[in-house]
Amino acid sequence: MSSAPASQVLSEKQNQQVERILKARNDDHGGVMVEMANEPMDAGVFVYLLRASLSHWRRQGKKGVWIKMPIELVNLVEPAVKEGFYYHHAEPKYVMLVQWLPSIANTLPASASHQVGIGAFVVNDKNEVLVVQEKNGKFGRTDVWKFPTGVVHEGEDICDAAVRELKEETGIDSNFLEILAFRQSHKSFFDKSDLFFVCMMQPLSFDIKPQESEIEAAQWMPYEEYAAQPFVQKHELLQYVADVCRRKKDGVYSGFSAVPTITSFSKKKCYLYLNTQD
Amino acid sequence: MSSAPASQVLSEKQNQQVERILKARNDDHGGVMVEMANEPMDAGVFVYLLRASLSHWRRQGKKGVWIKMPIELVNLVEPAVKEGFYYHHAEPKYVMLVQWLPSIANTLPASASHQVGIGAFVVNDKNEVLVVQEKNGKFGRTDVWKFPTGVVHEGEDICDAAVRELKEETGIDSNFLEILAFRQSHKSFFDKSDLFFVCMMQPLSFDIKPQESEIEAAQWMPYEEYAAQPFVQKHELLQYVADVCRRKKDGVYSGFSAVPTITSFSKKKCYLYLNTQD
Repeated sequence: MSSAPASQVLSEKQNQQVERILKARNDDHGGVMVEMANEPMDAGVFVYLLRASLSHWRRQGKKGVWIKMPIELVNLVEPAVKEGFYYHHAEPKYVMLVQWLPSIANTLPASASHQVGIGAFVVNDKNEVLVVQEKNGKFGRTDVWKFPTGVVHEGEDICDAAVRELKEETGIDSNFLEILAFRQSHKSFFDKSDLFFVCMMQPLSFDIKPQESEIEAAQWMPYEEYAAQPFVQKHELLQYVADVCRRKKDGVYSGFSAVPTITSFSKKKCYLYLNTQD
Repeated sequence: MSSAPASQVLSEKQNQQVERILKARNDDHGGVMVEMANEPMDAGVFVYLLRASLSHWRRQGKKGVWIKMPIELVNLVEPAVKEGFYYHHAEPKYVMLVQWLPSIANTLPASASHQVGIGAFVVNDKNEVLVVQEKNGKFGRTDVWKFPTGVVHEGEDICDAAVRELKEETGIDSNFLEILAFRQSHKSFFDKSDLFFVCMMQPLSFDIKPQESEIEAAQWMPYEEYAAQPFVQKHELLQYVADVCRRKKDGVYSGFSAVPTITSFSKKKCYLYLNTQD
Protein backbone atom coordinates (compact mmCIF):
# COMPACT_ATOMS: atom_id res chain seq x y z
CA MET A 1 0.00 0.00 0.00
CA SER A 2 1.26 3.44 -0.78
CA SER A 3 1.74 5.78 2.14
CA ALA A 4 -0.85 8.49 2.61
CA PRO A 5 0.06 12.04 1.48
CA ALA A 6 1.65 14.22 4.18
CA SER A 7 -1.37 16.49 4.42
CA GLN A 8 -3.68 13.56 5.12
CA VAL A 9 -1.32 12.13 7.75
CA LEU A 10 -1.24 15.51 9.46
CA SER A 11 -4.99 15.65 9.39
CA GLU A 12 -5.28 12.22 11.04
CA LYS A 13 -2.82 13.28 13.71
CA GLN A 14 -4.87 16.41 14.28
CA ASN A 15 -8.02 14.31 14.54
CA GLN A 16 -6.40 12.07 17.11
CA GLN A 17 -5.35 15.18 18.98
CA VAL A 18 -8.88 16.49 18.88
CA GLU A 19 -10.26 13.21 20.19
CA ARG A 20 -7.90 13.31 23.13
CA ILE A 21 -9.29 16.56 24.45
CA LEU A 22 -12.80 17.47 25.54
CA LYS A 23 -15.10 18.98 22.94
CA ALA A 24 -15.45 22.70 23.63
CA ARG A 25 -16.77 25.82 21.97
CA ASN A 26 -15.38 29.32 22.31
CA ASP A 27 -17.39 31.85 24.30
CA ASP A 28 -17.56 35.64 23.67
CA HIS A 29 -14.99 36.45 26.35
CA GLY A 30 -11.86 34.48 25.42
CA GLY A 31 -12.90 31.31 27.21
CA VAL A 32 -14.25 27.88 26.31
CA MET A 33 -17.43 26.01 27.24
CA VAL A 34 -17.56 22.24 27.55
CA GLU A 35 -21.06 20.79 27.57
CA MET A 36 -20.59 17.19 28.69
CA ALA A 37 -22.82 14.77 26.79
CA ASN A 38 -25.12 12.79 29.04
CA GLU A 39 -23.23 9.51 28.50
CA PRO A 40 -21.43 7.58 31.25
CA MET A 41 -17.68 8.31 31.43
CA ASP A 42 -15.07 6.68 33.63
CA ALA A 43 -13.47 9.15 36.05
CA GLY A 44 -9.95 8.07 35.00
CA VAL A 45 -10.68 8.69 31.32
CA PHE A 46 -12.20 12.05 32.21
CA VAL A 47 -9.14 13.16 34.20
CA TYR A 48 -6.85 12.11 31.32
CA LEU A 49 -8.90 14.12 28.81
CA LEU A 50 -9.28 17.07 31.17
CA ARG A 51 -5.55 17.40 31.82
CA ALA A 52 -4.77 17.26 28.09
CA SER A 53 -7.53 19.78 27.42
CA LEU A 54 -6.31 22.22 30.08
CA SER A 55 -2.76 22.09 28.61
CA HIS A 56 -4.19 22.73 25.16
CA TRP A 57 -6.34 25.67 26.29
CA ARG A 58 -3.47 27.16 28.31
CA ARG A 59 -1.29 27.09 25.17
CA GLN A 60 -4.12 28.81 23.29
CA GLY A 61 -4.28 31.55 25.95
CA LYS A 62 -7.85 30.74 26.93
CA LYS A 63 -9.21 32.50 30.01
CA GLY A 64 -12.29 30.94 31.62
CA VAL A 65 -13.00 27.24 31.17
CA TRP A 66 -16.60 26.21 31.82
CA ILE A 67 -17.85 22.63 32.22
CA LYS A 68 -21.60 22.07 32.23
CA MET A 69 -21.90 18.70 33.96
CA PRO A 70 -25.24 16.83 33.86
CA ILE A 71 -26.26 15.34 37.22
CA GLU A 72 -25.98 11.86 35.68
CA LEU A 73 -22.20 12.47 35.50
CA VAL A 74 -21.95 13.37 39.20
CA ASN A 75 -19.01 10.93 39.43
CA LEU A 76 -16.91 13.48 37.48
CA VAL A 77 -17.50 16.43 39.82
CA GLU A 78 -14.92 15.40 42.42
CA PRO A 79 -12.21 14.74 39.79
CA ALA A 80 -12.92 18.14 38.18
CA VAL A 81 -12.64 19.96 41.51
CA LYS A 82 -9.36 18.13 42.18
CA GLU A 83 -8.09 19.53 38.85
CA GLY A 84 -8.78 23.09 40.00
CA PHE A 85 -12.43 23.69 39.06
CA TYR A 86 -14.99 25.21 41.40
CA TYR A 87 -18.75 25.64 41.34
CA HIS A 88 -20.24 28.56 39.41
CA HIS A 89 -23.94 27.75 39.66
CA ALA A 90 -26.24 24.74 39.59
CA GLU A 91 -29.74 23.86 38.50
CA PRO A 92 -31.58 20.61 39.32
CA LYS A 93 -30.17 18.81 36.29
CA TYR A 94 -26.61 20.10 36.13
CA VAL A 95 -23.76 21.82 37.92
CA MET A 96 -21.65 24.44 36.10
CA LEU A 97 -17.96 24.15 36.99
CA VAL A 98 -15.44 26.82 36.12
CA GLN A 99 -11.71 27.50 36.22
CA TRP A 100 -9.82 30.69 35.40
CA LEU A 101 -6.57 29.88 33.60
CA PRO A 102 -4.53 33.10 33.15
CA SER A 103 -2.48 34.79 35.85
CA ILE A 104 -4.35 38.10 35.37
CA ALA A 105 -7.27 38.93 37.67
CA ASN A 106 -10.33 36.71 37.37
CA THR A 107 -13.12 38.55 35.53
CA LEU A 108 -15.60 35.69 35.45
CA PRO A 109 -19.18 36.85 35.97
CA ALA A 110 -21.14 35.92 39.09
CA SER A 111 -24.21 33.72 38.91
CA ALA A 112 -27.76 35.06 39.09
CA SER A 113 -28.01 37.41 42.06
CA HIS A 114 -31.69 38.20 42.55
CA GLN A 115 -35.04 36.64 43.20
CA VAL A 116 -38.01 38.66 41.94
CA GLY A 117 -41.41 38.87 43.59
CA ILE A 118 -44.68 40.74 43.06
CA GLY A 119 -47.42 42.14 45.23
CA ALA A 120 -50.84 42.79 43.68
CA PHE A 121 -52.80 45.94 44.55
CA VAL A 122 -56.39 45.37 43.42
CA VAL A 123 -59.26 47.77 44.11
CA ASN A 124 -62.94 47.27 43.23
CA ASP A 125 -65.46 50.03 42.53
CA LYS A 126 -66.51 50.12 46.20
CA ASN A 127 -63.04 51.37 47.17
CA GLU A 128 -62.23 47.94 48.64
CA VAL A 129 -58.83 46.32 48.31
CA LEU A 130 -58.25 42.58 47.84
CA VAL A 131 -56.36 41.12 50.81
CA VAL A 132 -55.33 37.67 52.00
CA GLN A 133 -54.09 35.85 55.09
CA GLU A 134 -51.40 33.28 54.36
CA LYS A 135 -51.08 29.77 55.78
CA ASN A 136 -47.27 29.48 55.61
CA GLY A 137 -44.12 31.56 55.63
CA LYS A 138 -43.38 34.62 57.72
CA PHE A 139 -46.99 35.85 57.65
CA GLY A 140 -48.46 32.39 58.33
CA ARG A 141 -50.67 32.10 61.42
CA THR A 142 -50.75 35.88 61.97
CA ASP A 143 -53.86 38.03 61.65
CA VAL A 144 -52.21 40.32 59.11
CA TRP A 145 -54.25 41.05 55.97
CA LYS A 146 -51.85 41.68 53.10
CA PHE A 147 -51.79 42.06 49.33
CA PRO A 148 -51.53 38.79 47.42
CA THR A 149 -47.83 38.17 46.69
CA GLY A 150 -45.76 35.65 44.82
CA VAL A 151 -42.52 34.77 43.12
CA VAL A 152 -41.79 35.63 39.47
CA HIS A 153 -40.65 32.47 37.70
CA GLU A 154 -37.49 32.31 35.64
CA GLY A 155 -38.48 33.33 32.12
CA GLU A 156 -41.74 34.95 33.27
CA ASP A 157 -42.66 38.60 32.72
CA ILE A 158 -43.40 40.58 35.89
CA CYS A 159 -46.75 41.73 34.48
CA ASP A 160 -47.75 38.12 33.69
CA ALA A 161 -46.56 36.86 37.07
CA ALA A 162 -48.87 39.34 38.81
CA VAL A 163 -51.89 38.13 36.81
CA ARG A 164 -50.98 34.47 37.46
CA GLU A 165 -50.35 34.82 41.21
CA LEU A 166 -53.52 36.82 41.73
CA LYS A 167 -55.55 34.14 39.92
CA GLU A 168 -53.86 31.29 41.83
CA GLU A 169 -54.23 32.80 45.29
CA THR A 170 -57.66 34.40 45.00
CA GLY A 171 -59.33 33.18 41.81
CA ILE A 172 -59.63 36.80 40.60
CA ASP A 173 -59.02 37.51 36.90
CA SER A 174 -57.19 40.74 36.20
CA ASN A 175 -55.30 43.00 33.83
CA PHE A 176 -51.89 44.38 34.74
CA LEU A 177 -51.97 48.18 34.86
CA GLU A 178 -48.75 49.59 36.38
CA ILE A 179 -45.77 49.01 38.61
CA LEU A 180 -46.29 51.53 41.41
CA ALA A 181 -43.01 51.03 43.27
CA PHE A 182 -40.40 48.40 43.93
CA ARG A 183 -38.15 47.43 46.81
CA GLN A 184 -34.66 45.92 46.63
CA SER A 185 -33.34 44.06 49.66
CA HIS A 186 -30.37 41.83 50.39
CA LYS A 187 -29.37 38.66 52.24
CA SER A 188 -32.81 37.32 51.57
CA PHE A 189 -33.61 33.73 50.57
CA PHE A 190 -30.31 31.75 50.41
CA ASP A 191 -28.41 35.02 50.87
CA LYS A 192 -29.49 36.28 47.45
CA SER A 193 -30.83 39.78 46.84
CA ASP A 194 -34.51 40.37 46.24
CA LEU A 195 -36.54 42.72 44.05
CA PHE A 196 -40.22 43.10 44.92
CA PHE A 197 -42.57 44.95 42.55
CA VAL A 198 -45.90 46.41 43.70
CA CYS A 199 -48.30 45.99 40.77
CA MET A 200 -51.61 47.80 40.30
CA MET A 201 -54.10 45.33 38.80
CA GLN A 202 -57.53 45.92 37.27
CA PRO A 203 -59.95 43.23 38.54
CA LEU A 204 -62.03 41.51 35.84
CA SER A 205 -63.92 39.23 38.23
CA PHE A 206 -64.94 39.66 41.86
CA ASP A 207 -65.84 36.26 43.36
CA ILE A 208 -62.98 35.14 45.57
CA LYS A 209 -61.84 31.48 45.64
CA PRO A 210 -58.90 31.23 48.05
CA GLN A 211 -56.10 28.80 47.10
CA GLU A 212 -56.43 25.91 49.54
CA SER A 213 -52.73 25.11 49.91
CA GLU A 214 -51.47 28.61 50.65
CA ILE A 215 -54.29 31.00 51.58
CA GLU A 216 -56.07 30.89 54.94
CA ALA A 217 -58.60 33.57 53.98
CA ALA A 218 -59.18 36.27 51.38
CA GLN A 219 -61.62 39.19 51.20
CA TRP A 220 -62.41 42.61 49.78
CA MET A 221 -61.61 45.05 52.61
CA PRO A 222 -62.28 48.81 52.81
CA TYR A 223 -58.99 50.47 51.88
CA GLU A 224 -58.84 52.54 55.05
CA GLU A 225 -59.26 49.41 57.14
CA TYR A 226 -56.31 47.78 55.37
CA ALA A 227 -54.12 50.84 55.88
CA ALA A 228 -55.12 51.20 59.54
CA GLN A 229 -53.83 47.73 60.53
CA PRO A 230 -51.19 47.98 63.28
CA PHE A 231 -48.83 45.89 61.14
CA VAL A 232 -49.02 48.45 58.31
CA GLN A 233 -48.87 51.40 60.69
CA LYS A 234 -45.70 50.27 62.43
CA HIS A 235 -43.66 49.57 59.28
CA GLU A 236 -42.46 52.61 57.37
CA LEU A 237 -42.02 50.58 54.17
CA LEU A 238 -45.64 49.40 54.23
CA GLN A 239 -46.82 52.93 54.96
CA TYR A 240 -44.94 54.21 51.90
CA VAL A 241 -46.53 51.51 49.79
CA ALA A 242 -49.99 52.13 51.25
CA ASP A 243 -49.57 55.85 50.56
CA VAL A 244 -48.52 55.25 46.94
CA CYS A 245 -51.51 52.94 46.48
CA ARG A 246 -53.88 55.50 47.97
CA ARG A 247 -52.53 58.20 45.67
CA LYS A 248 -52.86 55.89 42.66
CA LYS A 249 -56.42 55.01 43.69
CA ASP A 250 -57.17 58.73 43.91
CA GLY A 251 -55.70 59.35 40.44
CA VAL A 252 -52.73 61.48 41.53
CA TYR A 253 -49.83 59.08 40.98
CA SER A 254 -48.14 57.61 37.93
CA GLY A 255 -46.10 54.43 38.06
CA PHE A 256 -44.47 52.49 35.22
CA SER A 257 -46.53 50.84 32.47
CA ALA A 258 -45.33 47.79 30.51
CA VAL A 259 -44.53 48.56 26.87
CA PRO A 260 -43.91 45.49 24.69
CA THR A 261 -40.81 45.77 22.50
CA ILE A 262 -37.85 43.62 21.44
CA THR A 263 -34.31 43.39 22.79
CA SER A 264 -31.62 45.09 20.72
CA PHE A 265 -29.32 42.16 20.04
CA SER A 266 -31.13 38.89 20.39
CA LYS A 267 -34.41 40.18 18.95
CA LYS A 268 -36.48 38.61 21.69
CA LYS A 269 -39.80 39.96 22.91
CA CYS A 270 -39.45 41.87 26.15
CA TYR A 271 -41.15 44.55 28.19
CA LEU A 272 -39.84 48.02 28.92
CA TYR A 273 -41.43 49.52 32.05
CA LEU A 274 -41.66 53.31 32.03
CA ASN A 275 -43.84 56.27 32.95
CA THR A 276 -46.18 56.74 29.99
CA GLN A 277 -48.32 59.42 31.61
CA ASP A 278 -45.86 62.30 31.71
CA MET B 1 -20.44 -0.75 89.99
CA SER B 2 -24.06 0.20 90.36
CA SER B 3 -26.08 0.53 87.18
CA ALA B 4 -26.99 4.01 86.02
CA PRO B 5 -30.54 5.25 86.74
CA ALA B 6 -33.06 4.55 83.97
CA SER B 7 -33.40 8.20 83.04
CA GLN B 8 -29.64 8.50 82.45
CA VAL B 9 -29.59 5.31 80.35
CA LEU B 10 -32.37 6.70 78.20
CA SER B 11 -30.48 9.94 77.79
CA GLU B 12 -27.34 8.12 76.64
CA LYS B 13 -29.38 6.14 74.15
CA GLN B 14 -30.89 9.36 72.87
CA ASN B 15 -27.45 10.88 72.57
CA GLN B 16 -26.25 7.91 70.57
CA GLN B 17 -29.31 8.24 68.37
CA VAL B 18 -28.56 11.91 67.81
CA GLU B 19 -24.98 11.17 66.91
CA ARG B 20 -26.08 8.65 64.31
CA ILE B 21 -27.94 11.22 62.25
CA LEU B 22 -26.75 14.42 60.60
CA LYS B 23 -27.11 17.63 62.56
CA ALA B 24 -29.99 19.63 61.07
CA ARG B 25 -32.13 22.63 61.90
CA ASN B 26 -35.78 23.11 61.00
CA ASP B 27 -36.64 25.65 58.30
CA ASP B 28 -39.83 27.80 58.12
CA HIS B 29 -41.53 25.47 55.65
CA GLY B 30 -41.61 22.06 57.32
CA GLY B 31 -38.19 20.99 56.10
CA VAL B 32 -34.69 20.63 57.53
CA MET B 33 -31.35 22.20 56.64
CA VAL B 34 -28.04 20.37 57.10
CA GLU B 35 -24.98 22.62 56.98
CA MET B 36 -22.07 20.22 56.67
CA ALA B 37 -19.09 21.29 58.74
CA ASN B 38 -15.96 21.79 56.71
CA GLU B 39 -14.25 18.66 58.11
CA PRO B 40 -13.25 15.64 56.06
CA MET B 41 -15.78 12.79 56.15
CA ASP B 42 -15.53 9.34 54.66
CA ALA B 43 -18.16 8.71 51.98
CA GLY B 44 -19.18 5.41 53.63
CA VAL B 45 -19.76 7.09 57.00
CA PHE B 46 -21.72 9.86 55.28
CA VAL B 47 -24.02 7.41 53.47
CA TYR B 48 -24.64 5.56 56.74
CA LEU B 49 -25.56 8.80 58.54
CA LEU B 50 -27.59 10.10 55.61
CA ARG B 51 -29.75 6.96 55.35
CA ALA B 52 -30.45 6.99 59.10
CA SER B 53 -31.23 10.72 58.91
CA LEU B 54 -33.61 10.35 55.97
CA SER B 55 -35.51 7.58 57.82
CA HIS B 56 -35.73 9.82 60.88
CA TRP B 57 -36.94 12.86 58.94
CA ARG B 58 -39.47 10.75 57.01
CA ARG B 59 -40.92 9.50 60.29
CA GLN B 60 -41.11 13.12 61.45
CA GLY B 61 -43.05 14.07 58.29
CA LYS B 62 -40.37 16.49 57.10
CA LYS B 63 -40.80 17.90 53.59
CA GLY B 64 -37.70 19.39 51.97
CA VAL B 65 -34.24 18.24 53.09
CA TRP B 66 -31.41 20.66 52.26
CA ILE B 67 -27.69 19.86 52.45
CA LYS B 68 -25.24 22.74 52.13
CA MET B 69 -22.05 20.97 51.09
CA PRO B 70 -18.74 22.89 51.18
CA ILE B 71 -16.57 22.33 48.10
CA GLU B 72 -13.95 20.68 50.35
CA LEU B 73 -16.47 17.83 50.83
CA VAL B 74 -16.93 17.30 47.09
CA ASN B 75 -16.38 13.57 47.71
CA LEU B 76 -19.85 13.46 49.32
CA VAL B 77 -21.75 14.94 46.37
CA GLU B 78 -21.94 11.72 44.37
CA PRO B 79 -23.11 9.64 47.39
CA ALA B 80 -25.79 12.25 48.16
CA VAL B 81 -27.08 12.23 44.58
CA LYS B 82 -27.19 8.42 44.69
CA GLU B 83 -29.39 8.72 47.79
CA GLY B 84 -31.91 10.83 45.87
CA PHE B 85 -30.62 14.40 46.22
CA TYR B 86 -30.30 16.83 43.34
CA TYR B 87 -28.70 20.24 42.85
CA HIS B 88 -30.60 23.33 43.98
CA HIS B 89 -27.96 26.01 43.45
CA ALA B 90 -24.23 26.49 43.88
CA GLU B 91 -21.77 29.23 44.72
CA PRO B 92 -17.98 29.01 44.38
CA LYS B 93 -17.55 27.53 47.85
CA TYR B 94 -20.53 25.19 48.16
CA VAL B 95 -23.27 23.28 46.39
CA MET B 96 -26.77 23.16 47.86
CA LEU B 97 -28.36 19.72 47.49
CA VAL B 98 -32.04 19.09 48.07
CA GLN B 99 -34.53 16.25 48.27
CA TRP B 100 -38.32 16.40 48.64
CA LEU B 101 -39.53 13.62 50.94
CA PRO B 102 -43.37 13.58 50.95
CA SER B 103 -45.57 12.12 48.24
CA ILE B 104 -47.45 15.42 47.79
CA ALA B 105 -46.35 17.83 45.04
CA ASN B 106 -42.91 19.40 45.43
CA THR B 107 -43.24 23.05 46.50
CA LEU B 108 -39.51 23.75 46.88
CA PRO B 109 -38.56 27.25 45.71
CA ALA B 110 -36.40 27.80 42.64
CA SER B 111 -32.93 29.33 42.88
CA ALA B 112 -32.19 32.97 42.01
CA SER B 113 -33.70 33.74 38.64
CA HIS B 114 -32.38 37.13 37.57
CA GLN B 115 -29.26 39.08 36.86
CA VAL B 116 -29.54 42.83 37.34
CA GLY B 117 -27.76 45.48 35.30
CA ILE B 118 -27.69 49.26 35.09
CA GLY B 119 -27.17 51.84 32.36
CA ALA B 120 -26.09 55.36 33.37
CA PHE B 121 -27.64 58.40 31.68
CA VAL B 122 -25.39 61.37 32.47
CA VAL B 123 -25.83 64.85 30.99
CA ASN B 124 -23.59 67.87 31.52
CA ASP B 125 -24.67 71.51 31.37
CA LYS B 126 -23.78 71.72 27.65
CA ASN B 127 -26.54 69.20 26.86
CA GLU B 128 -23.92 66.54 26.20
CA VAL B 129 -24.37 62.92 27.22
CA LEU B 130 -21.57 60.68 28.51
CA VAL B 131 -21.00 57.76 26.14
CA VAL B 132 -18.49 54.93 25.79
CA GLN B 133 -17.26 52.37 23.28
CA GLU B 134 -16.59 48.95 24.80
CA LYS B 135 -13.64 46.65 24.18
CA ASN B 136 -15.40 43.33 24.81
CA GLY B 137 -18.80 41.69 24.74
CA LYS B 138 -21.54 42.17 22.17
CA PHE B 139 -20.71 45.83 21.59
CA GLY B 140 -16.94 45.22 21.44
CA ARG B 141 -15.19 46.35 18.25
CA THR B 142 -18.27 48.19 16.95
CA ASP B 143 -18.50 51.94 16.47
CA VAL B 144 -21.57 52.19 18.68
CA TRP B 145 -21.47 54.89 21.36
CA LYS B 146 -23.57 53.78 24.29
CA PHE B 147 -24.36 54.66 27.90
CA PRO B 148 -21.95 53.18 30.45
CA THR B 149 -23.44 49.92 31.70
CA GLY B 150 -22.61 47.27 34.25
CA VAL B 151 -23.77 44.45 36.46
CA VAL B 152 -25.27 45.01 39.92
CA HIS B 153 -23.41 42.82 42.41
CA GLU B 154 -25.15 40.49 44.81
CA GLY B 155 -25.88 42.54 47.92
CA GLU B 156 -25.43 45.88 46.11
CA ASP B 157 -28.10 48.57 45.80
CA ILE B 158 -29.02 49.56 42.25
CA CYS B 159 -28.38 53.23 43.00
CA ASP B 160 -24.91 52.43 44.39
CA ALA B 161 -24.08 50.13 41.47
CA ALA B 162 -24.78 52.96 39.02
CA VAL B 163 -22.38 55.31 40.88
CA ARG B 164 -19.70 52.58 41.07
CA GLU B 165 -19.91 51.48 37.44
CA LEU B 166 -19.86 55.04 36.16
CA LYS B 167 -16.74 55.78 38.23
CA GLU B 168 -15.02 52.56 37.13
CA GLU B 169 -15.72 52.91 33.42
CA THR B 170 -15.30 56.66 32.98
CA GLY B 171 -13.74 58.11 36.15
CA ILE B 172 -16.77 60.41 36.56
CA ASP B 173 -18.11 60.98 40.09
CA SER B 174 -21.88 61.20 40.34
CA ASN B 175 -25.04 61.19 42.41
CA PHE B 176 -27.90 58.83 41.65
CA LEU B 177 -31.06 60.75 40.75
CA GLU B 178 -33.76 58.44 39.35
CA ILE B 179 -34.57 55.19 37.63
CA LEU B 180 -36.12 56.33 34.35
CA ALA B 181 -37.20 52.95 33.02
CA PHE B 182 -36.29 49.28 33.18
CA ARG B 183 -36.32 46.33 30.85
CA GLN B 184 -36.89 42.67 31.71
CA SER B 185 -35.66 40.03 29.28
CA HIS B 186 -35.26 36.26 29.37
CA LYS B 187 -32.89 33.49 28.32
CA SER B 188 -30.00 35.82 28.87
CA PHE B 189 -26.68 34.89 30.49
CA PHE B 190 -26.77 31.15 31.44
CA ASP B 191 -30.47 31.10 30.51
CA LYS B 192 -31.36 33.34 33.47
CA SER B 193 -33.67 36.33 33.17
CA ASP B 194 -32.32 39.86 33.23
CA LEU B 195 -33.49 43.18 34.65
CA PHE B 196 -31.80 46.31 33.30
CA PHE B 197 -32.39 49.69 34.98
CA VAL B 198 -31.74 53.01 33.19
CA CYS B 199 -30.45 55.39 35.85
CA MET B 200 -30.30 59.18 35.58
CA MET B 201 -27.08 60.36 37.24
CA GLN B 202 -25.95 63.86 38.22
CA PRO B 203 -22.27 64.28 37.24
CA LEU B 204 -20.03 65.73 39.98
CA SER B 205 -16.83 65.72 37.89
CA PHE B 206 -16.25 66.06 34.17
CA ASP B 207 -12.75 64.80 33.27
CA ILE B 208 -13.05 61.40 31.66
CA LYS B 209 -10.55 58.62 32.46
CA PRO B 210 -11.63 55.53 30.51
CA GLN B 211 -11.16 52.16 32.23
CA GLU B 212 -8.27 50.51 30.40
CA SER B 213 -9.48 46.92 30.61
CA GLU B 214 -13.01 47.44 29.32
CA ILE B 215 -13.46 50.82 27.65
CA GLU B 216 -12.05 51.59 24.20
CA ALA B 217 -13.10 55.26 24.29
CA ALA B 218 -15.36 57.61 26.23
CA GLN B 219 -16.56 61.14 25.55
CA TRP B 220 -19.19 63.80 26.15
CA MET B 221 -21.35 63.77 23.00
CA PRO B 222 -24.14 66.17 21.98
CA TYR B 223 -27.38 64.41 22.93
CA GLU B 224 -28.84 64.68 19.43
CA GLU B 225 -25.74 63.04 17.97
CA TYR B 226 -26.14 60.10 20.37
CA ALA B 227 -29.80 59.68 19.52
CA ALA B 228 -29.16 59.98 15.76
CA GLN B 229 -26.82 56.96 15.63
CA PRO B 230 -28.11 54.31 13.20
CA PHE B 231 -27.82 51.70 15.98
CA VAL B 232 -30.18 53.69 18.19
CA GLN B 233 -32.50 54.57 15.31
CA LYS B 234 -33.01 50.98 14.20
CA HIS B 235 -33.84 49.55 17.64
CA GLU B 236 -37.25 50.43 19.04
CA LEU B 237 -36.13 49.69 22.60
CA LEU B 238 -33.22 52.15 22.36
CA GLN B 239 -35.51 54.77 20.83
CA TYR B 240 -37.92 54.43 23.73
CA VAL B 241 -35.04 54.85 26.17
CA ALA B 242 -33.59 57.80 24.24
CA ASP B 243 -37.02 59.41 24.22
CA VAL B 244 -37.47 58.96 27.98
CA CYS B 245 -34.00 60.45 28.54
CA ARG B 246 -34.76 63.42 26.29
CA ARG B 247 -38.00 64.08 28.16
CA LYS B 248 -36.22 63.80 31.51
CA LYS B 249 -33.49 66.14 30.27
CA ASP B 250 -36.22 68.60 29.25
CA GLY B 251 -37.90 68.34 32.66
CA VAL B 252 -41.12 66.69 31.51
CA TYR B 253 -40.70 63.15 32.86
CA SER B 254 -40.68 61.60 36.31
CA GLY B 255 -39.06 58.28 37.06
CA PHE B 256 -38.57 56.50 40.38
CA SER B 257 -36.41 57.96 43.16
CA ALA B 258 -34.70 55.84 45.81
CA VAL B 259 -36.16 56.26 49.30
CA PRO B 260 -34.15 54.64 52.10
CA THR B 261 -36.25 52.60 54.53
CA ILE B 262 -36.11 49.25 56.34
CA THR B 263 -37.61 45.88 55.46
CA SER B 264 -40.69 44.87 57.44
CA PHE B 265 -39.52 41.59 58.95
CA SER B 266 -35.75 41.44 59.06
CA LYS B 267 -35.29 45.15 59.87
CA LYS B 268 -32.57 45.56 57.26
CA LYS B 269 -31.85 48.79 55.42
CA CYS B 270 -33.26 48.79 51.92
CA TYR B 271 -34.42 51.17 49.19
CA LEU B 272 -37.94 51.63 47.94
CA TYR B 273 -38.04 53.10 44.42
CA LEU B 274 -41.09 55.17 43.65
CA ASN B 275 -42.35 58.30 41.92
CA THR B 276 -41.85 61.09 44.43
CA GLN B 277 -42.83 63.93 42.09
CA ASP B 278 -46.54 63.23 41.66
